[in-house]
Order: sequence, then structure tokens, then C-alpha cells
Amino acid sequence: MAHFRYLSFLTDYGLEDGFVAACHGVAARIAPHAGLIDVTHLIPPGDIRRGAAVLAQTLPYLPPAIHVAVVDPGVGTARRGIAVEAGASVFVGPDNGLLSWAVAAAGGAARAFSLTNRELWLGQVAATFHGRDIFMPVAAHLAADAELASAGTEIDVSDLVTLPAPERIIRDSAAEGEVVTVDRFGNVQLAVTASDAAQIGVTPGGSVLVQYAHLRLAVPYRDTFGAVEPGQLVAYPDSAGLVSLAVNGGSAAQRLGLAPGARVMITALPSAIRP
Amino acid sequence: MAHFRYLSFLTDYGLEDGFVAACHGVAARIAPHAGLIDVTHLIPPGDIRRGAAVLAQTLPYLPPAIHVAVVDPGVGTARRGIAVEAGASVFVGPDNGLLSWAVAAAGGAARAFSLTNRELWLGQVAATFHGRDIFMPVAAHLAADAELASAGTEIDVSDLVTLPAPERIIRDSAAEGEVVTVDRFGNVQLAVTASDAAQIGVTPGGSVLVQYAHLRLAVPYRDTFGAVEPGQLVAYPDSAGLVSLAVNGGSAAQRLGLAPGARVMITALPSAIRP
Amino acid sequence: MAHFRYLSFLTDYGLEDGFVAACHGVAARIAPHAGLIDVTHLIPPGDIRRGAAVLAQTLPYLPPAIHVAVVDPGVGTARRGIAVEAGASVFVGPDNGLLSWAVAAAGGAARAFSLTNRELWLGQVAATFHGRDIFMPVAAHLAADAELASAGTEIDVSDLVTLPAPERIIRDSAAEGEVVTVDRFGNVQLAVTASDAAQIGVTPGGSVLVQYAHLRLAVPYRDTFGAVEPGQLVAYPDSAGLVSLAVNGGSAAQRLGLAPGARVMITALPSAIRP
Repeated sequence: MAHFRYLSFLTDYGLEDGFVAACHGVAARIAPHAGLIDVTHLIPPGDIRRGAAVLAQTLPYLPPAIHVAVVDPGVGTARRGIAVEAGASVFVGPDNGLLSWAVAAAGGAARAFSLTNRELWLGQVAATFHGRDIFMPVAAHLAADAELASAGTEIDVSDLVTLPAPERIIRDSAAEGEVVTVDRFGNVQLAVTASDAAQIGVTPGGSVLVQYAHLRLAVPYRDTFGAVEPGQLVAYPDSAGLVSLAVNGGSAAQRLGLAPGARVMITALPSAIRP
Repeated sequence: MAHFRYLSFLTDYGLEDGFVAACHGVAARIAPHAGLIDVTHLIPPGDIRRGAAVLAQTLPYLPPAIHVAVVDPGVGTARRGIAVEAGASVFVGPDNGLLSWAVAAAGGAARAFSLTNRELWLGQVAATFHGRDIFMPVAAHLAADAELASAGTEIDVSDLVTLPAPERIIRDSAAEGEVVTVDRFGNVQLAVTASDAAQIGVTPGGSVLVQYAHLRLAVPYRDTFGAVEPGQLVAYPDSAGLVSLAVNGGSAAQRLGLAPGARVMITALPSAIRP
Repeated sequence: MAHFRYLSFLTDYGLEDGFVAACHGVAARIAPHAGLIDVTHLIPPGDIRRGAAVLAQTLPYLPPAIHVAVVDPGVGTARRGIAVEAGASVFVGPDNGLLSWAVAAAGGAARAFSLTNRELWLGQVAATFHGRDIFMPVAAHLAADAELASAGTEIDVSDLVTLPAPERIIRDSAAEGEVVTVDRFGNVQLAVTASDAAQIGVTPGGSVLVQYAHLRLAVPYRDTFGAVEPGQLVAYPDSAGLVSLAVNGGSAAQRLGLAPGARVMITALPSAIRP
């Protein structure tokens, strides 16, 4: 009986080389029954936080799967490879925090194993390509017929490396959050949830004061960027449930000069001074 | 019985975020039997005409399918979501003209429905991500077992938004057309068909006068760009049946400074002055 | 009985147009049972050597398949289309050398056929899109139920166009090799194998003198780039078994100004002057 019908796959390998395809090939050889959903392979090289954010935000829409993620600047060094069970899924990758936000989104780690069983690896392992030689073959074996416990030594889930959550401070009338991601459209996503916003009095139809560095901007808060005129700035609860800043038909990241890691504070504006 | 073996998927979501994967996941959960063919996700953000052109030109080579297309600058505003039956396929997306050229290429709209049946949507709908929360789930249900008519209220096919066709004027001895697309290679595709060209006396082996802005260029008309020397400009009937301009081994768009929307006129050149 | 469960697909078509999807559609119509693994579609336009290198290096990890590869600046001219049996796979594409390194990696050509049987092509063939109209339909028919010999006229395998191997000279104490590829991370891969390196006394833990143009650099030779400090240059045996140069967390190609085709010489450094 096959354990999992799907594998998902996220990396920083890019699409111009054959790296992703080699991993697809390995999966096809070991688990030909499994469908493989590519999450993205365009994580900026080595950007673990970006990888963690994209995986965690995509996860709720993926079917139960063996989720393989590899953003691994420490490949071939002492960092462990791990397989972590969480919810109905298993996460496979380096133990560098990359998986931690998705594991939390899936309900938290139930069991974890260090990938020490070489029988599930490829016969030869390149020190710089564990995605192809360790992570994907282990994942494919787990999807096919191997028991999770066969992946290697069990480890305490509290020993797993976890990334610190994005900064997020909610006060009575203001919410401050780190920029979590900037997407293709230049939308700037803050580590402030739509319910945080509601709690400080920011609701769709209202307005918000956006502050960062030495700048202060009054911005309408709407359900969608299409609710304001082209070229206009808008804040909205985005499709991951976080407050985002957008320019209708343009790039808020470019307009505002905001990048992941920057701190932004939002405050409800009384209707009298709404933009 | 499953209704459709394939879904196709075209968007302007890009490949660096998890947006496309979230939609793949939604499809896998609802219609695990269906193969999903990605048409492209690199339509420039909001460029409805480009999306319409790529979809219409790819369509003849795709199997019968539920074709999902989302280039949707008006997401979350009053524009409707639609499912349109045409030929052996169904097209699902926003009613903003994006689907219209492909629907025409498939033989024209037979029936159309406004996506008003929330039972085919995801439980929660983000105002900015109808691709994930409405279009893909509806499409997957239609691929799996839902009847087209269950998608929502039937609408008159004459009420569907259609994009104006690219400008194209054929005279006795000249054909004028808008630049429809520029492809990866910098080939410039005109809204002039190979038969239009034949009609005004332009046939492979001959030559053509290309005029735009204040420029006039004599260009050989061949079957393929490889028929001229590297670096040389050439006109040819392209793989979509339209007249295109290319530079063998280079970019005609760059060489000529032509972009989609520009107007270009071609005239047959008498053989005496062929380049 | 289907002959092949998998097709693989490598091109320079890019991902922004519908070219790749049209080929996927053709494959789905003819061989719906076959899984299709995209190797890459981002080979720089017309760069046959890059296509050949990526295909050959990915091949060992792909399942037995009909491998379709199209980097074809001479499309529509006199160059032949071919199907070549090698090992447990069949390679389909233009006879311009693109397939030759992969064919060699698969064990060498056993039989070869010129694609002259139009019954396996699409009904209409565009002179500029043989990938869609000839190569993919032939490949899909071969994957489904056509015999290899039905593809066309048998040709002598010694008549196939082969690319010259990358330059590689091994002397007693030095190895000189061409830069074969530069990957997404800026790692510079030399046409010098890890065993060549061992033979001239270069082994992990040691050091190497890197010489090109008028530059000489002492560089540590390690198992992986993570073994040196961030920002430091390192040489290592890469995941294809070749010696590569990397900058931990950066781009060696940029740092060193090296591109494919450049010549680099490496020599073992005595431990006394190791960096």
C-alpha cells in the first residue's frame, strides 16, 4: 500500500539547471505512483526565511503529502537531515528552520527522525546535493512503502531547529510587524494578521496610518487592491490572512522601498482624516 | 464518471511565490484524477491581451480540458467569474475578455454561466485570490463530477466581455497589423495571417517591405529564420499562422524597437529590388 | 502495451510563452499514460553546448524514457531530426549534437533513425516549431505504441553529429579544463573530473592553485562550499563528479569573471603554502 499519493517540492535550485529535474527523476524511479507538486524553486539562494514563509502559506491548500523542502546553505556540513510528522503530512529537509513554520501550520511536530538510514538514500551521495541524493529518495521511499520510523534515529521534537517568528507587536491602538514577504506583484506582506488589524480598529472600508523609518502615510484599508484607483496605495487583508500593502496595478515594494525584514507600524485613522 | 481528464492553467502569478502551487493543491484535492497542464504563469501582471493571445494560440494543441485562466486586475470587484462551454472544452476565469479569443478559437461560446454557486468554491474566499478560492475549485469540480449548469446562473453568451481583436487591415497590395506578441526569442508577431500575406503577393522566397513609424525596411520572406544568415532580419509565417519578424540568432523586437500594440505595414516587393 | 512510462523534455523555449505547453498538450493527446518530466526550458536561446551539458548531467537520475530535447537554431533547414536508442532510453531531437553527450552518457548509440515518417508527425508542420509538430508527436507515439524503427529511415550511428567534448588536458601535476557550465548559484564547473584531480594530487582537505588568464589563486579544496567561511572561495568535487569553483553564499562566476568556454588550470599546492 502506498502511504502518500503526493510529494510537494520547494527549493532554491532555480529552473535554469537540471537540478529540479534530477530530483523529479529520483522520485519517479522510487515512487512512480506519486504526483509531484512543485511549490516553487525560485527561493532566492540560501534565503531560509523566505522558503519557510512560502511553504507555510501554501501548505493549507496542498493535499496531505510528503513535503520536501531544500534551502540549504549548510549542505554537507554538520546540520542534520530530518523527517518530521505533523498533521496528516511529513516534512523532509535540512534541520535549519526551513520546515519549522510549515510544521507549526500543520499542527506542530508529532514525531521527528534524523535521516541516518542510508538504505533510503541513493547509493552515492554528493556532499553538495542532498536534495537529489538524500532528501528526495527518502521522501519517495516514505511515499511509497517505507515506514516513517525507518528513516533513521528518532529525535526529540523539541530539539528541532525553529526559526524565530516574524516580529509582531500588538498594542491597544497600533500593530507593528516585520515585512514577511514581497510577492511577484510587489505586494508587501506584514506579520500582522487581519484579526490583529480588526482588534486595533482597522476594518475594510476604513483607513490606516502606515509608519516606517521616518515616513507616515494615510492609506485606505479595503478588501482588495481593485477597490482603489490605479496607481493608488491600499492596505488589505491578503489571501494568507495577513495585512498587506499594494499599489493597484503597480508595486508597493518599489513605491515604499520596503523589503523583507523592515518594520512597519499601522494605526487606525479616525474617519475624519481618512484619505 | 469524470467529465474531463485534463485541466489547463494560465496566470500572471509568476513562479517565485506559492500561488500556482496552492491552485495545484486545490485541484489535486478535488480532482485527483485530472492531469494539469501549465500553459504559462509569466503573463506580465495584469496584461489581459497578452494572456488572451497566449491562451488562444496554445489552445489548438491542448487536449479537451477545463481551461482555467486568471489575469485579473479587477479581482474582488464587480466583474463576474464565468464558465464558458466552447467546442469540447470549458473555460473558467474572470469575465474581463481574457478568455474571449480562446473561446472564439474553440468555436465560439455555446453556453455560459456566472459562477454564483458557492458550493463549488472553497469555504473561505479571499477577495484577492479568486484563482485559488473560486476559479480552480469550480474547474476541478467540473472536471470531476459537477455538471456545467451547476456552476451558477446561466448568462447570455452575447453578454460576455470580449476583447477587441488586434487591429488588422488588408488592402489590395498592403497588409497592416498590430504587433500581437513578442516571444522569448524577440520574434515580433503581427496580426496579419500567412494567407493575408499570400493575398497581397507575399510568399516564401519573396521579399517584403516592412513599414512602421517612419522606418522602411526591405526584408526577405522565408519559411524559417534559419534560411537567412545569422544576424539578418527575416519575415516568415510563424507557428501560429501569423506573419512574424525575426533576427536569426537575435531579437527582432530589440533590433526594431517594436512592442505589442505597435502598428506595422507590409507590402510585397517586386523581385527586382529584393534584398 | 505502452513502451515507455516517461517522457523528458528540455528546450530553450522559455516559460513566458505557450510553446512548452503546446508540446505538453501534444504529448497528452497521443500518450496520455506517459508522465512528462521537464528537464529545463531555460537553456539560453540556441546554446547547444549548454543544452547538451544539462541533459547529460541530469540523465543518470531520470527514469528510462523518451528524452526529447530541442535547442535548434537550424529548425526548418536541412539538419535532420533523429531518434537514437541508447541504453534503456530513446533520444529525440535535431541532429545538431545536442543529444550527443547524453547519448554517450547512456552508453552510446545502439540504433538511430532519421525522422522521415510523416505519419508520426502532426498533420501540419510549421517550419519554425518542429518541437511541437515533429519531435514531441514522434516521441509520444514511440512512448505509446510505435516501434522505434517506424520513426523513419535507419541511419548509421557513426553519421550522427556529435559535439566535441569540452577541452580537458591532464598532465603529471596539472589538469586544465574548459568551463562547462555556470549554474544558478554562480558555481563554475570545470571539465576536470574529481578523479583527474585525485590523480594530480588534489584531494578534499588539500589546496589547489587555480590559474586562468593572468591570474593565480590559492584555493582550499573541500567536500562542499559550506566547509569554508561565507564569502570565501572554494574548489570541490561537484554533484556531477566534476571539479567546481564556488563562493560560499556568493557567485564564483561573478567573483572570478569566468564563463563557459574559458580555460582554467588547477595544480595541487604543497601543504606548506595552503591558504
